[in-house]
Amino acid sequence: MEHVFFPPLTRVAICGGTHGNEMSGVYLVRELLKKNPDQDGSLSVTPVVSNPRAIEVCRRYIDKDLNRSFVDSWLSAPITNSTPYEERRAQELNAQLGPRGSPEAMDFICDLHNTTANMGMCVITTRRDWINLHIFKYIQSKMSSVPVRAIVSNIPTSEVSFLDSVSKHGYALEIGPQPTGVLRAEIYNTMKEGVDLTLEWLQAFNSGTTFEGGEIEVYMKAKAIDYPRDPATNEITAAIHPHLQDNDFRLLRPGDPIFQTFVGESVMYEGEELYPYFINECAYYEKKIAFMLSRKTTVTLPSISVKRD
Amino acid sequence: MEHVFFPPLTRVAICGGTHGNEMSGVYLVRELLKKNPDQDGSLSVTPVVSNPRAIEVCRRYIDKDLNRSFVDSWLSAPITNSTPYEERRAQELNAQLGPRGSPEAMDFICDLHNTTANMGMCVITTRRDWINLHIFKYIQSKMSSVPVRAIVSNIPTSEVSFLDSVSKHGYALEIGPQPTGVLRAEIYNTMKEGVDLTLEWLQAFNSGTTFEGGEIEVYMKAKAIDYPRDPATNEITAAIHPHLQDNDFRLLRPGDPIFQTFVGESVMYEGEELYPYFINECAYYEKKIAFMLSRKTTVTLPSISVKRD
Repeated sequence: MEHVFFPPLTRVAICGGTHGNEMSGVYLVRELLKKNPDQDGSLSVTPVVSNPRAIEVCRRYIDKDLNRSFVDSWLSAPITNSTPYEERRAQELNAQLGPRGSPEAMDFICDLHNTTANMGMCVITTRRDWINLHIFKYIQSKMSSVPVRAIVSNIPTSEVSFLDSVSKHGYALEIGPQPTGVLRAEIYNTMKEGVDLTLEWLQAFNSGTTFEGGEIEVYMKAKAIDYPRDPATNEITAAIHPHLQDNDFRLLRPGDPIFQTFVGESVMYEGEELYPYFINECAYYEKKIAFMLSRKTTVTLPSISVKRD
Repeated sequence: MEHVFFPPLTRVAICGGTHGNEMSGVYLVRELLKKNPDQDGSLSVTPVVSNPRAIEVCRRYIDKDLNRSFVDSWLSAPITNSTPYEERRAQELNAQLGPRGSPEAMDFICDLHNTTANMGMCVITTRRDWINLHIFKYIQSKMSSVPVRAIVSNIPTSEVSFLDSVSKHGYALEIGPQPTGVLRAEIYNTMKEGVDLTLEWLQAFNSGTTFEGGEIEVYMKAKAIDYPRDPATNEITAAIHPHLQDNDFRLLRPGDPIFQTFVGESVMYEGEELYPYFINECAYYEKKIAFMLSRKTTVTLPSISVKRD
């Protein structure tokens, strides 16, 4: 079996409140900030309050979605009076935690998110990155309270606009269901466990542990489905069907009901068999996404360990 | 048994989006507006979009809580450039549906609300009003999909600031759990059933049906409980305990856990046995309310029927 060596991963950022109304990360990072010092064994851990102004007003963002703002051309654009707040904040975070693609960038960013969808814990990574996927495998093997899944998207690196793209490795930890603006204890505890397991893995990796390879199942992002809409007003004319609601990651087959119109009619799914997720996510109404669809795929991981200089 | 006569109740308003991010009422009223005419048997039904600007940005309110803005002194204050949007809107609604306390006021307002708390369907009334409580009794007897309860508060009429206080009778129909900004089909269907049963009762009443009296159980608002807070920063230091979360209307006893601190400690309830509700309601964080407490009481209703001229 293939074996891959990586340099030590010592500089880590835990980011919360990238979306200001996703409360688990907001409160978890505030707790981390009360701890002193940030040195934790082999790790230097930096807690980051990503979007303080959005947190203050308990909204996803002030001017635009911060977690879509890490775009090369914006990160290098001059700041003017008309620069949206989140573009300015993306430049600040890129300076603090990056710069993206540079040797000075953080080794790892764990960016904390909540969803109103019933997704349990998801490691969302835009990179088929052996470090990210090994940590996912570790978390999945250790957690029993909620299902743990990995969502991988095939976005060219140049088009990735997420905060976690600033560091050499890293992912979003997405946990739900939780309403925006609400803090639920069991979701907070789950997120804390996910962060603790991430740091535990990084410590073990740095201390020389070899992580054996093997097969894992991941969900590959396939496409987005919008709500039915009135062609005249563009308003939605249906809600997610009760049979689909809360059934993230249950295989969707042609003929399954996916929407229920406001006059009570069912709309059936047409298309190939795929796995839905982000079903009825609050923030995706404005993005015109009722749910996402994915393909389940097996990935073979190499075994990995730290490269000693 | 006592018998009480009331004049016919023919002019009815169904109000949605009084809080702009409570989606069931927003979409239900939009559906009602598509229907023409508003005449429904003995009833003239007026659908009202209460807070259009808040709905547009999907927030509870623009400047302040509309459903706390029906205050006598504000309703009669001159409008200036600095008048908050919701105070202006309260004056408009009072002119359209009231004026409050006048013979011209609507006979009945049904004001549609959602909560993130697991409250099922609640009829919330600030008046121990025989009409309101008879309709509650009727809805409770007809609905099987969710528990139906009545919450009654003992507020002097002069201090009531809710939209439904503008009409001669009326209540808020509160349904949860549903995240703000999210529309769930089964919650929408429940709200539609609640509205349909309200209108059905009013029709039957106007057509001469006698509604027999009897005993009903209601929850009387007792007090509000805040989150534990850091005295220095005023930030909350705990979430609702998992044993309390989602257990609205389950009797709370001294010694029951009510909060879990961010370092994992349980905080126990001290006080008399009461029934909690609005547990972890999103909008109540800013009002410094973690949950409400109520006393269960039996109310004896008189039988009622319409007074023929």
